[in-house]
Amino acid sequence: MSATDELIDNAEHYAAGFGGPLPLPPARHVAVLACMDARLDPQAVLGLREGDAHVIRNAGGVVTADALRSLAISQRLLGTTEIILIHHTDCGMLTFTDDQFKAAVEAEVGIRPQWAAEAFSDLDEDVRQSIRRIRADPFVPHKDAVRGFVFDVATGKLTEVA
Amino acid sequence: MSATDELIDNAEHYAAGFGGPLPLPPARHVAVLACMDARLDPQAVLGLREGDAHVIRNAGGVVTADALRSLAISQRLLGTTEIILIHHTDCGMLTFTDDQFKAAVEAEVGIRPQWAAEAFSDLDEDVRQSIRRIRADPFVPHKDAVRGFVFDVATGKLTEVA
Repeated sequence: MSATDELIDNAEHYAAGFGGPLPLPPARHVAVLACMDARLDPQAVLGLREGDAHVIRNAGGVVTADALRSLAISQRLLGTTEIILIHHTDCGMLTFTDDQFKAAVEAEVGIRPQWAAEAFSDLDEDVRQSIRRIRADPFVPHKDAVRGFVFDVATGKLTEVA
Repeated sequence: MSATDELIDNAEHYAAGFGGPLPLPPARHVAVLACMDARLDPQAVLGLREGDAHVIRNAGGVVTADALRSLAISQRLLGTTEIILIHHTDCGMLTFTDDQFKAAVEAEVGIRPQWAAEAFSDLDEDVRQSIRRIRADPFVPHKDAVRGFVFDVATGKLTEVA
């Protein structure tokens, strides 16, 4: 039995206790952008219930072009106005450089990725970088409430950085 | 008090009950790619605990270049081997076309987005499209266990599509 099979079994239990349909637009008008890290559960950390907020996640919680696409759709079509950014301690993105990663992939696959891996070396600084990228984007309309945090995977604490 | 302030208060409660550090690599060797929709909580649906799986999310749960970046990092650096894709009923991405969205943004901002909005008109077909994009990617090494699902936001049920 694969891990996927086990998780699908879990989904049957979830459906059995499901509370019914909710409106499409997020009730709290919040979009969260967080790292994909397995130890970070943004809904649990922030006490989000189904229907509360959009949650966007990628490797690093980086403000990539795709994250900006999601934020633009979130705000323009579904009414969110606040953005919460969450990076975290012990992040995998702190353990390599883009050059190392790309060279390793090229050595194995023969093709060098045409995208940035978006590794970073300073957690707090990357949170501030993320906020700057959002502020510089022409397509995200609401930028007055963009706040950045670091989640500590050792203590479970969330600390505001910017 | 902003919604963000309320959610930060929730985070203090989470930290108070926090169970302590976990290993960085996902214990179940799974990466989930799901829509950012507020009504879909992939951890809750799949019964994922902290430490179990990477969770990647964007508008639509689309296999974008950034999702492929995250999947490549997840598999190459952190040992995941299975991929679970989750789209859902009543998705915002079904309610517009790329042309409409871009024209509306251009009319307001004066600049036409240089990226695809990635709207789609057929849920099941977009799940299959997603799997094809992963299979075509040269940088994601493990493609034997890529499965696609649709979550029903009215019933809470998860149905396998491909």
